[in-house]
Amino acid sequence: MKTFVATLALLTVALTLRAEIKTETIEYKDGDTTLEGHLAYDTGFTGPRPAVLVVHQWMGLTDYEKKRCEMLVKLGYVAFAVDIYGKGIRPTTVSEAGAQAGKYKSDRALLRQRVNAGLACLRKQGRVDAGRIAAIGYCFGGTTVLELARSGADVAGVVSFHGGLDSPKPEDGKNIKCKVLALHGADDPFVPEKDLAAFEAELRAAKVDWQLVQYGGAVHSFTDWKADGSLKGAQYNERADRRSWADMEQFLVESFK
Amino acid sequence: MKTFVATLALLTVALTLRAEIKTETIEYKDGDTTLEGHLAYDTGFTGPRPAVLVVHQWMGLTDYEKKRCEMLVKLGYVAFAVDIYGKGIRPTTVSEAGAQAGKYKSDRALLRQRVNAGLACLRKQGRVDAGRIAAIGYCFGGTTVLELARSGADVAGVVSFHGGLDSPKPEDGKNIKCKVLALHGADDPFVPEKDLAAFEAELRAAKVDWQLVQYGGAVHSFTDWKADGSLKGAQYNERADRRSWADMEQFLVESFK
Repeated sequence: MKTFVATLALLTVALTLRAEIKTETIEYKDGDTTLEGHLAYDTGFTGPRPAVLVVHQWMGLTDYEKKRCEMLVKLGYVAFAVDIYGKGIRPTTVSEAGAQAGKYKSDRALLRQRVNAGLACLRKQGRVDAGRIAAIGYCFGGTTVLELARSGADVAGVVSFHGGLDSPKPEDGKNIKCKVLALHGADDPFVPEKDLAAFEAELRAAKVDWQLVQYGGAVHSFTDWKADGSLKGAQYNERADRRSWADMEQFLVESFK
Repeated sequence: MKTFVATLALLTVALTLRAEIKTETIEYKDGDTTLEGHLAYDTGFTGPRPAVLVVHQWMGLTDYEKKRCEMLVKLGYVAFAVDIYGKGIRPTTVSEAGAQAGKYKSDRALLRQRVNAGLACLRKQGRVDAGRIAAIGYCFGGTTVLELARSGADVAGVVSFHGGLDSPKPEDGKNIKCKVLALHGADDPFVPEKDLAAFEAELRAAKVDWQLVQYGGAVHSFTDWKADGSLKGAQYNERADRRSWADMEQFLVESFK
C-alpha cells in the first residue's frame, strides 16, 4: 500500500510540474454592454476540456473568483469567471455592492441575459468541450447560476455556494434541464427558511435532479476567505469551505460523465 | 495522462488480487440477551484498521447489511453489522418487522444499550483501530446510529441513510461528541417535515458538527436494492444510492483523519 501511495505521489508531482496555468482577460458583450471576464486554463492539455463558468459575489469579479478559477483548472477544467456588472464596474463598498446586486436581483430577465452572455463567450473558447459546461456561483453568483438554470440554459449542472435561493417566478423551474446542487450554511441568516422551502417545492414540482446540502454551524459567505464576521451573519468557515468544495468536485465529475 | 491512468489501473488490479475478504459470525451479549453480528475484514491488511459499525433496517440483520460490510471492507475498513433484535430474531414479514422496530423505537434507552453492546464488541476485535470507529445505519438503523451518538458514544462519526430523525429527548443532543451526517430522500413520506426541523434544531442547539444532504426525487429506502415500491413511499433510487455512498465515503475519510 505504501509503495502504491508513493508511486501515486510521484506521478502526481510529475503531472503538476508539466502543467502551466495561463489566464486571459476576455472582453465580451451583452448587447451594447461591454463585460470583462477572466479565463484560466492548463496548457498541459491538448484536447477540449470540460469547463466551469464562475459567477462572482456581490462585490463583482475579484481576486476571489480568479483564485477559484485556478483551483478549478487544477481539477482539470477550463474556468471562466464571468462579469455580470460590466467592465470597470467593481464595487468598493458594501453600499455600492448592494446597489449593483440589487439591480440584477430585481431584474431577473436582465440577470439571465447577462449570465447567458458569459456562457456564450465561454462556449466559443477553443479549449472548451462545448457539450460539457457547468456553472458555479457564490452568494449573488449562486442566485445567478440558479437563474441560468431557470433560463433553460444547456449546461450539465449548476452549483450554488451560499446563494440566495428565492425565485420571483418559481414556475420557471420547469425550464431547468441540468442537475442542481445547492450548498447552504444551515445558519445563514440571509436565506430565510421560507426560501429554502420554496426552492425545494419549485424543484420538486419541476422534477429537477436536485440536491441540497446543509452545513451545520455555517453562516453566509462560508467559503469566502475574507469574510471575517465584520458583516454580521457572513463568516468564513474552513470546514464548510473544504466540504462544499469536495461536494462540488464530486458533482462536477458526475455532471461531466 | 493516459499512462498515469493505466498505471493506476494496474496498481489497483494488483491490490485487488492481493486482498481477500473474510467474514465471521460473532456472538456477543447485551446482559442476558445473545446477539449475532457479522464481521468482515480484509486479510491483506496487517495493522489495525479504522472500523465501521453497520446497523440494520427494520427487517433485522440480512444479506443487505452483509453486502454493505463487504463494500466497506473494499474501502479499507473493518466492518461489523450488529444485531439489535437478538440471535434468531429475523422478521420475515412487514408486520413482524414493525413490531420489532417499534419495540426499540419506543424504548430508546434499550436501543442505545443494544447498539452500544455492538460497539463494545467491535471495539475489542483485534484488527480494529479502537480509536477510529464510525457507525452507519439504514432506515431503523439510521435512527439507531443517531441514538448511539445521543448516548455520548465515543465514535468518530455517524451516518444515517434514510433514517428516522425524531428524538423523544432532543436535549440529549448535548451528549453528541461525534460528527453527524444525515442522508435523506427529499420526498421521504416517512420522515415528516417537522422531524427534519426538530433534528436541525436539536443539533444546532447542541453545537454538533452536523450535515444534512437531501436528494431530490428520492423517497424512503433509496439505498435498498430490494425496495421495489410495493411498500408505498419506499423505493430504490440508483442515483441517490450512488451519491449517498460517495457522500459517506468522503465523510468517513474526514472522520478517520
